[in-house]
Amino acid sequence: MAAPSGSTCGVRERSIRERVPPLLTDLYQFTMAYAYWRAGRHQEPAVFELFFRDNPFGGGFSIFAGLDDCLLFLQSFHFTDEDVDFLRSVLPPATDPAFFQFLRGLDCSGVTVRSVPEGTLVFARVSSRVNTGLVCSNAARFRLAAGPSRRLVEMGLRRAQGPDGGLTASRYTHVGGFDLTSNVQAGFLFGIPVAGTMAHSYVTSFTSLEEVYPRTLATVNGDPVDFISLTKVWLSHVSGLLEAEPGKIREDELAAFLSYAVSYPHNFLPVIDSYSVGCSGLLNFCAVALALCELGYQPVGVRLDSGDLCRQSVDVRRVFRLCRKHFSIPAFDSLIIMATNNISEQSMAELNKKENEIDVVGVGTHLVTCTKQPSLGCVYKLVEVRGRPRMKSSEDPEKSTVPGRKAVYRLVGADGHAFLDLVCLGAEASPQAGVPLSCFPLGCDGSVVTPAQVTCLFQEVFTKGQVRVVMTAPTFIY
Amino acid sequence: MAAPSGSTCGVRERSIRERVPPLLTDLYQFTMAYAYWRAGRHQEPAVFELFFRDNPFGGGFSIFAGLDDCLLFLQSFHFTDEDVDFLRSVLPPATDPAFFQFLRGLDCSGVTVRSVPEGTLVFARVSSRVNTGLVCSNAARFRLAAGPSRRLVEMGLRRAQGPDGGLTASRYTHVGGFDLTSNVQAGFLFGIPVAGTMAHSYVTSFTSLEEVYPRTLATVNGDPVDFISLTKVWLSHVSGLLEAEPGKIREDELAAFLSYAVSYPHNFLPVIDSYSVGCSGLLNFCAVALALCELGYQPVGVRLDSGDLCRQSVDVRRVFRLCRKHFSIPAFDSLIIMATNNISEQSMAELNKKENEIDVVGVGTHLVTCTKQPSLGCVYKLVEVRGRPRMKSSEDPEKSTVPGRKAVYRLVGADGHAFLDLVCLGAEASPQAGVPLSCFPLGCDGSVVTPAQVTCLFQEVFTKGQVRVVMTAPTFIY
Repeated sequence: MAAPSGSTCGVRERSIRERVPPLLTDLYQFTMAYAYWRAGRHQEPAVFELFFRDNPFGGGFSIFAGLDDCLLFLQSFHFTDEDVDFLRSVLPPATDPAFFQFLRGLDCSGVTVRSVPEGTLVFARVSSRVNTGLVCSNAARFRLAAGPSRRLVEMGLRRAQGPDGGLTASRYTHVGGFDLTSNVQAGFLFGIPVAGTMAHSYVTSFTSLEEVYPRTLATVNGDPVDFISLTKVWLSHVSGLLEAEPGKIREDELAAFLSYAVSYPHNFLPVIDSYSVGCSGLLNFCAVALALCELGYQPVGVRLDSGDLCRQSVDVRRVFRLCRKHFSIPAFDSLIIMATNNISEQSMAELNKKENEIDVVGVGTHLVTCTKQPSLGCVYKLVEVRGRPRMKSSEDPEKSTVPGRKAVYRLVGADGHAFLDLVCLGAEASPQAGVPLSCFPLGCDGSVVTPAQVTCLFQEVFTKGQVRVVMTAPTFIY
Repeated sequence: MAAPSGSTCGVRERSIRERVPPLLTDLYQFTMAYAYWRAGRHQEPAVFELFFRDNPFGGGFSIFAGLDDCLLFLQSFHFTDEDVDFLRSVLPPATDPAFFQFLRGLDCSGVTVRSVPEGTLVFARVSSRVNTGLVCSNAARFRLAAGPSRRLVEMGLRRAQGPDGGLTASRYTHVGGFDLTSNVQAGFLFGIPVAGTMAHSYVTSFTSLEEVYPRTLATVNGDPVDFISLTKVWLSHVSGLLEAEPGKIREDELAAFLSYAVSYPHNFLPVIDSYSVGCSGLLNFCAVALALCELGYQPVGVRLDSGDLCRQSVDVRRVFRLCRKHFSIPAFDSLIIMATNNISEQSMAELNKKENEIDVVGVGTHLVTCTKQPSLGCVYKLVEVRGRPRMKSSEDPEKSTVPGRKAVYRLVGADGHAFLDLVCLGAEASPQAGVPLSCFPLGCDGSVVTPAQVTCLFQEVFTKGQVRVVMTAPTFIY
């Protein structure tokens, strides 16, 4: 079941102050802030850059995401009296009271943010002043593994770290190539199409056909029909066709399917493995679906959530084709099979190698917790103060930083493919299309290249306290 | 730097509705709700149980956590007009409008929650109606690896999934045995002591001693002293003592340490690896610390954030002892050494095997993202409707459920140690101290045991729409 929906930016702005209060940061930000303030250095212009050292999941790319929330945070940033009172209790008693006055009046009107647009492919070690989306990149890998045609549903809310983790996961897996989410709030806030029908508990909550209510269903033309009797007739036809053992067909499961179908005759997609797919769930589904078809409705399909999903999908499709042919019901050609049990990137890739009839895949745990690599070591480093470049050396050479404010250009070849992201100092002249230039790719010898096109990757996305229009690039292209 | 702080329950209740709106759930909860409502089954009493199939991290226990937020959520649960309007747009057009009226008036006054107290040790496959804390259990494993005396600081905010993930991580790592957090908001909301001094960017932002301001520091008796000159004298003493190369001692780093020390003479704990610990950071620290001591202040210590932390801590301690002896400064005996670079459970355990002088360990990424196992497969299953037990069988035998409402008793032996968590049906008589009983431990043959004490693990923690007093058990005991 999917719904179009408008995005609700006002609600998001209202909630950002609650979700990301200015105290939600490490204490050393405040201890340093006071030391800077005391030394009179708090108005000095400084440049920080955000980058990461390695692409996640052993892969060759990342997708940039997370900017929008950061900018809303900056726009609404201010300290309340309550916040400042707490800081007063945390900092030493000798802290100058004027510092707390300063905090009370502080906002982000002096901050400028330059960034690539959300959804842009980005690479390790390219200073990019970005917040890279680990979950977004993970979603893109699932999408690559799934191929372009299979529909993907994100359903990781219950495994995410807290409510906000679930919400951001829904959002950025959509940017990364997922079609739908089970998360209703993500539909509400971000306009992502939502999907879902029933859990096993719905099926197991029924004990007999007496619990089905209403017991009639109107045809699409409006005449009410005894839906239970009609379905029982279809069940005996299906049982005969499939040579099923009637004693193994669960009436409690049938009651659940019937009860759902009378409420959602246009959206019938039950989970069919609560007891046994082959002996019960599939037969009950076919019976209810055939009854719906007789009344003029199009049933949607089934969900499988355990066992060998590929093998079962083949068996289910075979039964759908058999029913379609035997009962002459064309609607059974368009039934979809959804699979949802603990799908990883690897098992997604295997779907393209093993015989299966799965149309839609729901992914939860491995998607939102990024099991394969649950964190991305983003680094946020000072590179310039008052126009002077700054760097950190380190006992670990890996952790040294490249000083100075950078610009990044994406160089595109004559074939239309980007071939290099060029990092320059911000003060250097930008490369020009058609003009040869020397560059030094990481880990390679220097070489001379001639770009056919040059794109400056950064846009000014926040200035004078306001978010500027950010074009979100839905870049996921095959 | 640590602060005591009061908990602020009002703020938390206000924010829960913003952080966990009732739409933050899977769509199938609403599609099922409508089908139940339409069938007139929405007032039937039903019992769900929450459990998990395996202890995380290949370990033998878990720690229960997360209850408090759930109960606040239940207490504030209601749908706004905006929520209901969105649901109207998501559900099919034929949905009965009276259902939305019903939602608008819905609250949790009919819900009862029984649970073990937060902080209780719990085990896999014991139906426990609980929300188990993966991060909390992970923290406990770090604590076990660290031993009882080393101080542990949680500093994972920047690696957590979104703001709320960071906040819950700070909270539940504290329950799991961490002493301090870097997360200021966690201090504000939950009263956890906060800690932190400076980042590398603070050190690298300085270029010369001219940036130090104020340039004087008052002795503890109030007389201002030229702190820069005083420190320079100490630096030459220390350089001589350690036979250092004066050309390698960074004046910009000294400027940063001086500037911090004049703002925080009682809380001087700089990060000393921005350039080189041995050639610069350690010497600059000793000079400033000796100057502070001369004025009557107690410097706190140093932080190491790269390289071989164990070896460096030994070198640093040796220098502290040398200074203490040579300059007769007893304050140098109580300097602490903090280490913070990418600590895992394994590297924490190695600290107990390798020679080192580390007093405080800060842990981030591996703690809050649970790198070793980033999710815990909690299962929430229907076990009873209208007093009748319900179960789900499955193509995967692992995924079948045990029907019926359970009670769980912790059986304690004569030696005072718990030896078994006994799962019974709720309707069965509870076991009695001193009375032999038959039990069937998972994976073992049945046996007869006689408990010396019996504790019923569940308390009624939510009833009639209100949170009942929940005793949080800070159970982490060696």
